[in-house]
Amino acid sequence: MVYLKSMVKSKKRLIQKPEPAPEEKIILELIQYDEKEYIRQDNLPVEELITKINPQLVNWVNVDGLHNPTIIQELGKYFCIHQLLLEDITTDHQPKSEEYEDYLFFTLKMLYRIENGVIDYEQISFVLGKDFLVSFQEKEGDMFDSFRERIRLSQGRVRKLKGDYLLYRLMDIIVDNYYNVLDAVGSQIEQIEEDVYQNPSESNFLRIQKIKKDLLFLRKALYPLRDAMNRILKDESNYIETSTIRYFSDVYDHVVHLIDSLETYKDLNSGLMDIHINSMNTRMNEVMKILTVISVIFMPLTFIVGVYGMNFDVLPELHWKYGYLGVWVLMITITITMIRYFKYKKWF
Amino acid sequence: MVYLKSMVKSKKRLIQKPEPAPEEKIILELIQYDEKEYIRQDNLPVEELITKINPQLVNWVNVDGLHNPTIIQELGKYFCIHQLLLEDITTDHQPKSEEYEDYLFFTLKMLYRIENGVIDYEQISFVLGKDFLVSFQEKEGDMFDSFRERIRLSQGRVRKLKGDYLLYRLMDIIVDNYYNVLDAVGSQIEQIEEDVYQNPSESNFLRIQKIKKDLLFLRKALYPLRDAMNRILKDESNYIETSTIRYFSDVYDHVVHLIDSLETYKDLNSGLMDIHINSMNTRMNEVMKILTVISVIFMPLTFIVGVYGMNFDVLPELHWKYGYLGVWVLMITITITMIRYFKYKKWF
Amino acid sequence: MVYLKSMVKSKKRLIQKPEPAPEEKIILELIQYDEKEYIRQDNLPVEELITKINPQLVNWVNVDGLHNPTIIQELGKYFCIHQLLLEDITTDHQPKSEEYEDYLFFTLKMLYRIENGVIDYEQISFVLGKDFLVSFQEKEGDMFDSFRERIRLSQGRVRKLKGDYLLYRLMDIIVDNYYNVLDAVGSQIEQIEEDVYQNPSESNFLRIQKIKKDLLFLRKALYPLRDAMNRILKDESNYIETSTIRYFSDVYDHVVHLIDSLETYKDLNSGLMDIHINSMNTRMNEVMKILTVISVIFMPLTFIVGVYGMNFDVLPELHWKYGYLGVWVLMITITITMIRYFKYKKWF
Amino acid sequence: MVYLKSMVKSKKRLIQKPEPAPEEKIILELIQYDEKEYIRQDNLPVEELITKINPQLVNWVNVDGLHNPTIIQELGKYFCIHQLLLEDITTDHQPKSEEYEDYLFFTLKMLYRIENGVIDYEQISFVLGKDFLVSFQEKEGDMFDSFRERIRLSQGRVRKLKGDYLLYRLMDIIVDNYYNVLDAVGSQIEQIEEDVYQNPSESNFLRIQKIKKDLLFLRKALYPLRDAMNRILKDESNYIETSTIRYFSDVYDHVVHLIDSLETYKDLNSGLMDIHINSMNTRMNEVMKILTVISVIFMPLTFIVGVYGMNFDVLPELHWKYGYLGVWVLMITITITMIRYFKYKKWF
Amino acid sequence: MVYLKSMVKSKKRLIQKPEPAPEEKIILELIQYDEKEYIRQDNLPVEELITKINPQLVNWVNVDGLHNPTIIQELGKYFCIHQLLLEDITTDHQPKSEEYEDYLFFTLKMLYRIENGVIDYEQISFVLGKDFLVSFQEKEGDMFDSFRERIRLSQGRVRKLKGDYLLYRLMDIIVDNYYNVLDAVGSQIEQIEEDVYQNPSESNFLRIQKIKKDLLFLRKALYPLRDAMNRILKDESNYIETSTIRYFSDVYDHVVHLIDSLETYKDLNSGLMDIHINSMNTRMNEVMKILTVISVIFMPLTFIVGVYGMNFDVLPELHWKYGYLGVWVLMITITITMIRYFKYKKWF
Repeated sequence: MVYLKSMVKSKKRLIQKPEPAPEEKIILELIQYDEKEYIRQDNLPVEELITKINPQLVNWVNVDGLHNPTIIQELGKYFCIHQLLLEDITTDHQPKSEEYEDYLFFTLKMLYRIENGVIDYEQISFVLGKDFLVSFQEKEGDMFDSFRERIRLSQGRVRKLKGDYLLYRLMDIIVDNYYNVLDAVGSQIEQIEEDVYQNPSESNFLRIQKIKKDLLFLRKALYPLRDAMNRILKDESNYIETSTIRYFSDVYDHVVHLIDSLETYKDLNSGLMDIHINSMNTRMNEVMKILTVISVIFMPLTFIVGVYGMNFDVLPELHWKYGYLGVWVLMITITITMIRYFKYKKWF
Repeated sequence: MVYLKSMVKSKKRLIQKPEPAPEEKIILELIQYDEKEYIRQDNLPVEELITKINPQLVNWVNVDGLHNPTIIQELGKYFCIHQLLLEDITTDHQPKSEEYEDYLFFTLKMLYRIENGVIDYEQISFVLGKDFLVSFQEKEGDMFDSFRERIRLSQGRVRKLKGDYLLYRLMDIIVDNYYNVLDAVGSQIEQIEEDVYQNPSESNFLRIQKIKKDLLFLRKALYPLRDAMNRILKDESNYIETSTIRYFSDVYDHVVHLIDSLETYKDLNSGLMDIHINSMNTRMNEVMKILTVISVIFMPLTFIVGVYGMNFDVLPELHWKYGYLGVWVLMITITITMIRYFKYKKWF
Repeated sequence: MVYLKSMVKSKKRLIQKPEPAPEEKIILELIQYDEKEYIRQDNLPVEELITKINPQLVNWVNVDGLHNPTIIQELGKYFCIHQLLLEDITTDHQPKSEEYEDYLFFTLKMLYRIENGVIDYEQISFVLGKDFLVSFQEKEGDMFDSFRERIRLSQGRVRKLKGDYLLYRLMDIIVDNYYNVLDAVGSQIEQIEEDVYQNPSESNFLRIQKIKKDLLFLRKALYPLRDAMNRILKDESNYIETSTIRYFSDVYDHVVHLIDSLETYKDLNSGLMDIHINSMNTRMNEVMKILTVISVIFMPLTFIVGVYGMNFDVLPELHWKYGYLGVWVLMITITITMIRYFKYKKWF
Repeated sequence: MVYLKSMVKSKKRLIQKPEPAPEEKIILELIQYDEKEYIRQDNLPVEELITKINPQLVNWVNVDGLHNPTIIQELGKYFCIHQLLLEDITTDHQPKSEEYEDYLFFTLKMLYRIENGVIDYEQISFVLGKDFLVSFQEKEGDMFDSFRERIRLSQGRVRKLKGDYLLYRLMDIIVDNYYNVLDAVGSQIEQIEEDVYQNPSESNFLRIQKIKKDLLFLRKALYPLRDAMNRILKDESNYIETSTIRYFSDVYDHVVHLIDSLETYKDLNSGLMDIHINSMNTRMNEVMKILTVISVIFMPLTFIVGVYGMNFDVLPELHWKYGYLGVWVLMITITITMIRYFKYKKWF
Repeated sequence: MVYLKSMVKSKKRLIQKPEPAPEEKIILELIQYDEKEYIRQDNLPVEELITKINPQLVNWVNVDGLHNPTIIQELGKYFCIHQLLLEDITTDHQPKSEEYEDYLFFTLKMLYRIENGVIDYEQISFVLGKDFLVSFQEKEGDMFDSFRERIRLSQGRVRKLKGDYLLYRLMDIIVDNYYNVLDAVGSQIEQIEEDVYQNPSESNFLRIQKIKKDLLFLRKALYPLRDAMNRILKDESNYIETSTIRYFSDVYDHVVHLIDSLETYKDLNSGLMDIHINSMNTRMNEVMKILTVISVIFMPLTFIVGVYGMNFDVLPELHWKYGYLGVWVLMITITITMIRYFKYKKWF
C-alpha cells in the first residue's frame, strides 16, 4: 500500500542538506494570461522564468518536482517565501493555510485512484500573491491538463478573473477528484457487503481492514483541509476578493460533504465488520450443532452395541430368538426420538 | 435499498453538460396569491411563466424535475440565481442554507416512507426572494397537495402573510413527514425486539443491520438540516420577517427533537444487537452443555461395556452368576450420579 | 413498558382538529394568594375562571387534562399564548424554555416511579406572566398536594414572594422526584450486581437491558431540561427576579448532578453487562473443560479395552495369567497421570 | 464498598427536619491568627464562638459534624450564609464554587485511602469571607493537623497572609491527598497486570471491575472540582487577592493533572480487561486443541480395534500370523502421522 | 518499561525537604553570545555563575540535575523564579507554559528512543527572561550538542537573534525528536501487522498492548504540549518578539501533526487488535471443524463395527460369505459421502 508508508513515516524531510541537484529534472512551467493574452512557456530555467514574470498578467508558475533545493530556494527568494514555508512545501505536511504579508500559502494532498482500489497521493502547495500563483507538485503529471486547455481557449470565466479564481479552480479540480476516490471506496464497501453474507472468509476480513485504513488515510487528508479552508473563509484574506469568496465557500461545502460521507462509510465499514463476525459466529454455531447432533445420536447407539459385545457367561438377551432384531428396533427408536427432539429445538 | 446507492455514490452531478433536454418533461407550476386573489397555472412554458410573475402577489414557482438544464438555467437567469447554487440544486447536496444579496437559498431532503419500511427521498431546494419563492423538486408528485388546497380555500393564515411564511409551511410539512419515517423505524425496532429474544436468527440480524443503515441515512439528512436551520435563526436573514422567525424556530425545535429521537433509536438498535449476540451465545452454551452431558454420561458406560468385551482367558467377573446384572447396576448408578451432579450445577 | 411507546412514537399531536370535547373532564383550579389572602377555587368553568384573575395577587391556574382543545384555546387566548406554544403544550415535546414578550414558557417531564421499577411520566408546561402562573398537566393528580397545603398555611416564604418563586418551588418538587426515580434505578443496579456473579442468566441480562432503556429515557428527559434551565439563567428573563435566580440556579445544579449520576449509572450498568458476558464465558470454559477432561481420560481407556476385545488368533496378552490385572493397572496409571496433568494445568 | 452506596443513593439530605440534636456532639474549633498573635479554642459552644470572632485577625472556624441542624443554622445566620448553601453543606453535593455578596462558597470531597485499597471520603465545604474562613466537615478527624502545627509555629508564609491563602493551603492538602489515592489505584493496576497474564481468573476480573468503579467515583469527584476551580480563576473573586490567584491556579493545574492521570488509568484498566479476555480465549483455544488432538488420535484407533472385534465367520486378517502385530504397526503409524500433522500446524 | 512507573506514580516530588545535596553533582553551564562574541563556561559554582550574567549578551544557563535543592533555590532567587515554579521544575509535571511578570516559563518532556523500542524521557523546563534563558534538565547529556556547535560557529541565524529564538531552536530540536520516537512506533506497528496474520500468538498480542501503552504515554506528553504552545501563540507573550512567533507557530504545527499521527497510530493499533482477535477466532473455527469432521466420520463407523462385535446367537450377517467385505463397502461409502458433504459445505 503506497500511502501506508507515508502514515508510518510521519514526516520525511525532502530537503535535508542544501546539496547539488539529483539527476531527475525539476520542470518549471509558466502560464501567463489576461482577458486578451495567453502565453505558456515550459522547461524554463529558473533564472529566466523569474525575469518573465509580468505584473500586468496573471502569472501561474507550476513546479513539478521538489528534489532540487537550489531551484526551490531561488524561487523562494524571488517570491519572498518564508524559510519555514519552503520547508513545509518540501516536507510531507498536513494540509494548512497561512496568510503572510506578501502572499497566502495553502498546502493540501492531491489524491489519485489507481487500479485495484489503491490510492496514491501527492502533496501540492500554493503561494498566491497579488499577481502570481506558484504551485509546487512532487511529481510530473497532474489532473489540470484539460483545465489548462480551457484557459488557453478562454472557456469559462477564468481569463476574466485574477489569480484567486485560478486557485479556486485548481482546488475545485483536486477536491472533485476526492469524490472519485471516495466513490471507489464506496463501491468496494457495496461489493464486500454482498460477499460477506455468503462467505465470512479471511479475505473479506482483510478487505474490510484495508478499507478501514483507506478511510483513516482520507480522514488525515480531509479534516485538516476543512480547517484550512475554514480559516481562509473566516480571516478574510487580502489575496482573495470578496466575489471569489463564494467559490471557496463552495469548495469548503464540498469538503464538509466529503467528511460527512467519509464518516458514513466508516460506519458502514464497521457494520461490515459486525456482519463478518456474526457470520463467523453463526458458522461456528452450525459446526457445533452438527458435532452435537452426531454425538448425541451415536454415543447411545455405540453404548448399546457395546453392551451386547460383552462376554458374560450369563447374558440372556444374547440367546433370545429376536434379540438382534430387538436391538435394532431399540436403536432406531432412539435415533428417531433424538431427531425429533432436535427438530423441536429448531436445530434443522 | 433505494438510498444506499445515494450513500455510495457520494455526489452525482445531474447537469454535467448543457445538452438538449431528455424526453421527460419538467413541470412548472405557478401559484400566486394575496389576501384577496388566488391564481394557479400549471404546465406553463418557462418563458411565459417569467412574464407572469407579479411583484404585488406572493409568487410560488414550483419546478418538478431537474433533468433539463436549459430550463433550470433560464429560471436561474431570471431570478439571478448564482451559478454555484444552480449546481447545488441539480446535484445531490447535503442540506444547507445560504443568504445571497437577492434571496435566501435553502436545500434539504424530502423523505418518503414507502411500503416494506423502505425509505425513499428526494431533494428539494428553495429560493426565497422579496416577492417570490421558487421550489425545485427532483420528481413529480409531492406532499403539498392538501396544503395547496388550504391556500386556495384561504384556510389558516397563509394568505395573509408573505413568502417567508409560505416557506415555513412547506418546511414544516416536510419535517412533519420525518416523524412518520422515524416512527416507522421505531415500530420496526419494537417488532424486532419481540422477535429477537425468541429467535436469534440471521434474518433478525439483517433487519438490525438494515435499521442501522436507515438511521445512518437519516442522520446524514438531519444533522446538516439542523445546522442550516440554526444559521437562518442566528443570522437574521433579510428575507424572513421577525414575526415569522418564531415559526422557523419551531421547525428547528422539531429537527432537534428528531435528532434526539434518532440517537435514542440508535442506542435502542445497538441494544438489539447486544440482545442478538447474547441470544446466540446462550444458544451456543446450551448446545455445548448438551454435548457435554451426553459425553460425560456415555463415555464411562461405553468404557465399562468395553471392559467386559475383552477376551482375556482369565477374566473372573465374566463367570460370576450376577456379573451381567452387577454391570447394569453399576452403570445405572453412574448415570444417576452424573445427572444429579448436573442438576446440582444447575445445567437443567 | 409505559414509556417505550413514547420513545417509539416520537411525537403525538394531541390536538389535531379543533373538535368538540371528549367525555373526560378537564379540571381547572385557581389558587390566588398574597401575604394576607389565600383563595382556592376548583372546577371552575373556563369563562368564570378568567373573570376571577386578580392582578393584585399571585394567580396560579392549574389545568389537569389537555384533551379538550376548546378550553386550551380559550385559556390561550386570554393569556395571549402563542399558537405554536399551545401546540407544544398539547404535544409530547422535549423540555424547553422560551421567553415571549408577555410571559416565560417552560415545559418539562414529571417522572413517577410506580411499582416494579416501572417509570411513568407526564408532561407539564408552565406559562409565567407578570401576575399569573398557568400550569398544564396531562392527567389529574400530581405531586404538589402537600405544597398546596404549605401555601395555604403560609409555611415557608412562598406567600411573601411572587409567581417566579412559585414556579421555582414547583420545579424543585418535580426535580426532587427525579432523585427518587434515579435512586430506584440505582438500587436495581446494586441488586443485579449481586445476582449476576452467581448466575449469568437470561433474566439478569434482560434486567440489564431494561435499565439501559430506563437510562436512555431519563437522558432524553434530563439533557434538554439542563439546556432549558441554562437558557433561563443566562438570558436574564424579565419574569424572574434577580433574587429568585439563585433558586433556579440551585435547581440547575440538581439537574447537572442528576445527569452526572445518570452517566455514572450508565457506566455501572455497562459494567454489569461486562460481568454478565464474562460469567457466561467462564461457564462456557468450565463446560468445555469438563468435556475435555472426560474425553481425555476415557478415550484412551476405551481404546485399550477395545484392543483386548479383538479376536486375533494370535494375541498373546490374552493368555497371560495376570493379563487382565495388568490391563487394569495400566488403565489406572493412565487415569492418575491424566488427572495429575490437569491438576498441574490448574483445571481443577 | 463504602462509596458505592453514595453512588447509588444519589442525594441524601442530612438535615431533613429542624429537629433537636442527636447525641453525637458537633465539635467547633476556632483558630485566630495574624503575624504576631495565635489563639486556638476548641469545643466552644456556638453562641460563645460567635462572640469571639475578631475582624482584626484571620478567623478559621472549623465545624466537625453536620448532624445538628440548629448549630449549622445559627452559624449560618451569623455569617449570613444563604439557606440554599446550608442545604448544600449538609447534603451530598458535587464539588462547586459560588460567589455570593458576602463570601465565596466552595465545596469538595476529601478522599482517604484506607486499607485494602478501599477509598473513603468526606464532604468539606468552605465559606470564605473578608475576615473569616468557615470549614464544615462531616466527621471528626482530618488531614490538617500538621498544618495547624505549622500555623502555630508560624512556619511558612501562612501567618503573613489572609484567609484566602489559608483556603489555598487547605485545598492544596486535600488535593495532594488525591495523588495518594490515585497512586494506590495505579499500584493495583500494576499488580493486576503481572497477575492477569498468568492467570485469567475470576478474581482478577473482579479486581479490574472494582478499579473501574473506583475510577468512576474519582471522576465524579474530580471533573466538577476542575470546573469549580476554573470558575474561581476566571471570575476574579473579590475574596481572593491577585497575588494568591497564582496559588489557586497551581491547585487547578494539579487537578487537571489528576484528571489526566485518571484518564490514563482508565485506558490502562480497560487494557487489562482486554488482556483478561484474551487470556481466557487463549485458554479456551488450548482446551479445544487438547480435546481435538485426543479425539483425532483415538477415534481412528478405536475404530480399528473395533473392526477386529467383529465376529464375522470370514475375517481373514484374524487368522494371519502377524495380524496382531500388523494392527499395532498400523496404529502407531497413524498416531505418529497425526502428531506430525499437529506439529506442522503448530499446535504444540 | 521505564515510563510505566512514571505513569503509575502520578507525581513525585523531587525536592521534598531542603536538605543538603547528595553526592551526584549538578552541572551548571553558561553560554553567552551575541553577533560578535561567544563565551562558554562549564562546571561553574552557582555563586560565580550568577556574577557572570551579562545583560548585553544572550545568557543561556543550562542546569543538568535537579536533585540539589540549594542550587535550584539559589538560581531561583537570582532569577526571581516563583516558588511554585521551582516546585514544578523539580517535580514530574505535565507540559505547560505560564507567563510571569519577569519571565516566561515553559516545561515539557524530552523523549528518547532507546534500543528495543523502549521510550525514555526526561523533563526539561525553560525560564525565558529579557536577557537570559535558563534550562533545567533532570540528567546530564542531551540532544543539543550539535546545536551548541552551530552557535559557536555562528551557523544559521541564532547569533543574530535573541533568547526567544534560542528557545525556539531548543524546542524545535526536542519536538523533532518526537518524530523519531513516533516513527519507531509506526515501524513496530508495520512489523506486527505482517506477523499477526500468520500467527495470532500471545507475544503479538503483548506487543500490541505495549504499543497501546506507548501511545498513551505519548498522548500524555503531546496534548498538554499543544495546549501550552497554543497559549503562547494566543497570549502574545512579552518575551517573544513578533517576528519569532512565526517559528513557534511552526513548532505548534508540528505538535498538531504529531497528535494527528498519534491518533492514526492508535486506530491502526486497535485495528491490529481486531486482526489478532479475528485470527484467533478463525483458528478456533478451524480446530472445531477438524474435531467435527473426525467425529462425524468415525462415530458412525465405530458404531457399525460395534454392531458386528455383538455376541447374539442369531446374527445372520456374521455368517454371510461376503459379510466382512460388505461392511467395508458400507463404511467406505459412508466416509466418502461425509467427505463430499463437507466439501459441499466448503469446510476444506
